[in-house]
Amino acid sequence: MSGRIRNESLRSKVMTAGEAAALVQDGWTIGFSGFTGAGYPKEFPGALAARINAAHDAGEPFRVNVLTGASTAPELDGALARTGGVGIRAPYQSDPDMRSAINAGDADYLDIHLSHMGQQVRRGYFGRLNLAVVEVTAITEDGKLVPSSSVGMNRTYLDEADFIVLEVNEWQSEELLGMHDIFYDVGNLPPHRVPLPIRTASDRIGQPVFDVDPAKVVGIIETNSADRNTPFKPLDDDSKAIAGYLLEFLGDEVRKGRLPENLLPLQSGVGNIANAVLAGLAEGPFENLTSYTEVIQDGMVDLLDTGKLTVASATAFSLSPEYAERMNREAADYRSKIILRPQDVSNNPEAVRRLGVIACNGLIEADIYGNVNSTHIMGSRMQNGIGGSADFARNAYHSIFVTPSTAKRGAISCIVPMVSHVDHSEHSTSMFITEHGIADLRGLSPRKRSKVIIDNCAHPDFREPLREYVKLAEKKANGMHTPHDLASALGWHVRFLETGTMRP
Amino acid sequence: MSGRIRNESLRSKVMTAGEAAALVQDGWTIGFSGFTGAGYPKEFPGALAARINAAHDAGEPFRVNVLTGASTAPELDGALARTGGVGIRAPYQSDPDMRSAINAGDADYLDIHLSHMGQQVRRGYFGRLNLAVVEVTAITEDGKLVPSSSVGMNRTYLDEADFIVLEVNEWQSEELLGMHDIFYDVGNLPPHRVPLPIRTASDRIGQPVFDVDPAKVVGIIETNSADRNTPFKPLDDDSKAIAGYLLEFLGDEVRKGRLPENLLPLQSGVGNIANAVLAGLAEGPFENLTSYTEVIQDGMVDLLDTGKLTVASATAFSLSPEYAERMNREAADYRSKIILRPQDVSNNPEAVRRLGVIACNGLIEADIYGNVNSTHIMGSRMQNGIGGSADFARNAYHSIFVTPSTAKRGAISCIVPMVSHVDHSEHSTSMFITEHGIADLRGLSPRKRSKVIIDNCAHPDFREPLREYVKLAEKKANGMHTPHDLASALGWHVRFLETGTMRP
Repeated sequence: MSGRIRNESLRSKVMTAGEAAALVQDGWTIGFSGFTGAGYPKEFPGALAARINAAHDAGEPFRVNVLTGASTAPELDGALARTGGVGIRAPYQSDPDMRSAINAGDADYLDIHLSHMGQQVRRGYFGRLNLAVVEVTAITEDGKLVPSSSVGMNRTYLDEADFIVLEVNEWQSEELLGMHDIFYDVGNLPPHRVPLPIRTASDRIGQPVFDVDPAKVVGIIETNSADRNTPFKPLDDDSKAIAGYLLEFLGDEVRKGRLPENLLPLQSGVGNIANAVLAGLAEGPFENLTSYTEVIQDGMVDLLDTGKLTVASATAFSLSPEYAERMNREAADYRSKIILRPQDVSNNPEAVRRLGVIACNGLIEADIYGNVNSTHIMGSRMQNGIGGSADFARNAYHSIFVTPSTAKRGAISCIVPMVSHVDHSEHSTSMFITEHGIADLRGLSPRKRSKVIIDNCAHPDFREPLREYVKLAEKKANGMHTPHDLASALGWHVRFLETGTMRP
Repeated sequence: MSGRIRNESLRSKVMTAGEAAALVQDGWTIGFSGFTGAGYPKEFPGALAARINAAHDAGEPFRVNVLTGASTAPELDGALARTGGVGIRAPYQSDPDMRSAINAGDADYLDIHLSHMGQQVRRGYFGRLNLAVVEVTAITEDGKLVPSSSVGMNRTYLDEADFIVLEVNEWQSEELLGMHDIFYDVGNLPPHRVPLPIRTASDRIGQPVFDVDPAKVVGIIETNSADRNTPFKPLDDDSKAIAGYLLEFLGDEVRKGRLPENLLPLQSGVGNIANAVLAGLAEGPFENLTSYTEVIQDGMVDLLDTGKLTVASATAFSLSPEYAERMNREAADYRSKIILRPQDVSNNPEAVRRLGVIACNGLIEADIYGNVNSTHIMGSRMQNGIGGSADFARNAYHSIFVTPSTAKRGAISCIVPMVSHVDHSEHSTSMFITEHGIADLRGLSPRKRSKVIIDNCAHPDFREPLREYVKLAEKKANGMHTPHDLASALGWHVRFLETGTMRP
């Protein structure tokens, strides 16, 4: 037995994953830890999948509802999706098998703003939370839980579940103790909410560990398994170009006196473009930066190393294997500069608005009038989900969206006449950036936006077709505020579905 | 001269509206007071319109950019729109002539979340604010300004403008002094923002008057003119039915322990349905209600009179002539129960989220998957604007949308396969109510939503056509999360534009 379980009475609850999974009943709703592939339980989900498969093989119905922080990993989302036994899935996923289950109409996906999940669970919108399965780094002598590489929804699930299974993961560094900041009052439901006492990204307002009712803990599983982690991809030219435009814009705003010299707290989505932006900042002129974001990826660790970023506040890591190993070795050094908070704090509209976050997120497609689709392929097919993008974009000081100008090797234009699904409306977007340039939408009416989006952001091959659409729309529309020809507004998508390309 | 101007040095600046309007130059950006037809300047805009018309008659170019709190009145929006001399118009309007100018592609309308306007003006997104024209009730001996029937953007415009023209309106009751709550720190730009110290709708956190730099005041106009005000319409059966469903839902939530017995602070849009809801609450079982909203209309005054509503927090009145007269007579009695705040406080996401506001807004059309269009007729034509609806709906505890099931005497279904414009995405709506019933969207995936929306909310004549669309979409879609047939998703709108009805 590992030395990580320091509370004596809890030590008696150690069991195998199979024994723990045997407790689950058909129809249960389970809250799992896990956020962007960090801190999810490694052993229990596979054992639960085996239990579900066995039931199905025996001709018995067996479905569970799967709640998490956000995306997890093949061992969790993939394993459970492949059983065909997932009822409800919320609030975010990015797993190929889970995506297939959702788009086959099998799993019932609730695509929820991440900051809303806590209040919905607490108010019982998902019914009773039967079980919480939460990875922790260690259990202290007095029975407190040391969080691991993500915080996400864990506090809520531990508090609300009838039963709890813990996975104690020796792979996670014990030096993480002190990096987390668990603010309990954020769980208060109205009318009992209090002001969130955060005035800068670096403010610590909570405690470093989770409380847990030991009577609810029905099993503890020991493991020593790495987080999913995403291999680092070398930066491509498009991402570097996009990052360049963003940094130029930020520099301009500082020169015009519209942003402080150290900018405002940065939020960025995960992925290649975000890493390029962070790499650009590492070489750029800005000092004393702060970050108030959802996820800490490689580039942010590098930026901390340069000393230009003074603090990174988030709810989870999402590191390459190399950086994850390093974080495990050097957590003690990063503990004062990284703060991991519950997702109802990291994504809280109150904090995002007050701090004046500069939000920078990816998208699937944007339209000429400023609307953004972050979730659906050709209107019907779910890709990942909205995640925290609207928690940030809707309340941010700048709501920037970045994307390559085309997808599918040029067959798809990411700038279209009308998006096939709207996650961020034209009222809540302030800037689009592609490898071709930046469209600054502030102070522009829809028709003026369409000009700068087409001229600056669309791929050159699609600019003329977009201009032709505008001409047609201005001829056919019943009003010139946002001229559309509704008969052909989604025609590019229809063409793609029929021919495999948006090109005429 | 009226006795309302009690500061001696300011008294010397009294002039006619024509004299004041003569100061304006071509290309100026002007911030006007006014919110939902309350507290707008009555004399200056007409004089400015005459000046613009005279310039145009002389063959000279003359345009001004018109910023307000929200909608105003024919004397302001109408008069200026008819000159053809409006450049930019922001952030909200509802005037027939201004709407025509916008949809003719003449005026450049920026349809902005009302809570965002302050920071955009302060950061100079509209360029220099040349002039503020603000109605006040009185000027105190020490040169402070007593606000009138709306607060809106006034503090920001007074602070930011190069020059100021005041209209002192004797029609407004002097007893309004003490009803307003002007919180100055809300104007801080990040990184200097502080927590908004509001924990209940009744919290007063600011001062009762505006500060003003007397050196910037270039003119004071005296007037004695009533606010626009909207005649009260008797409640129709559809509105009563919708109100009934809403009250039933609220009662249910209380019984299930998901809402406190006195509910949570209510926000409601303006109009007939809102008045019906308020009338229903006046007869209903709930006590000790509070309201944290944008506008106070007749029904809310009635609800205060019953004693069931203890406080109404808003940024403006929008009363019938009868109720406006009464407010002027009895303002002293209402002063402790009504709080008028700047719109960056009344609509602040931080407050809306923390208080757990129950938001109830109207719409133009909703779709079967939960998306809402609040602004555009058939995708292209601007109706009024998004106003504060997304400030509330996006951050509220419940985001309820109400509408009759049809419009244009049954030619338009307000429930459509796909909305022609999205202002509130499926992620941010929790309930639809029509005269036929309520669709509770919480915890439902898009396909389950489509069933309850069609069954409970759509007009019976349109239910089968909607079900047929769903069947077709499920056959043609590339994914079953939000099945659409993009070739016909907007077909109902196309049919309306071609034939004048959505009916087949």
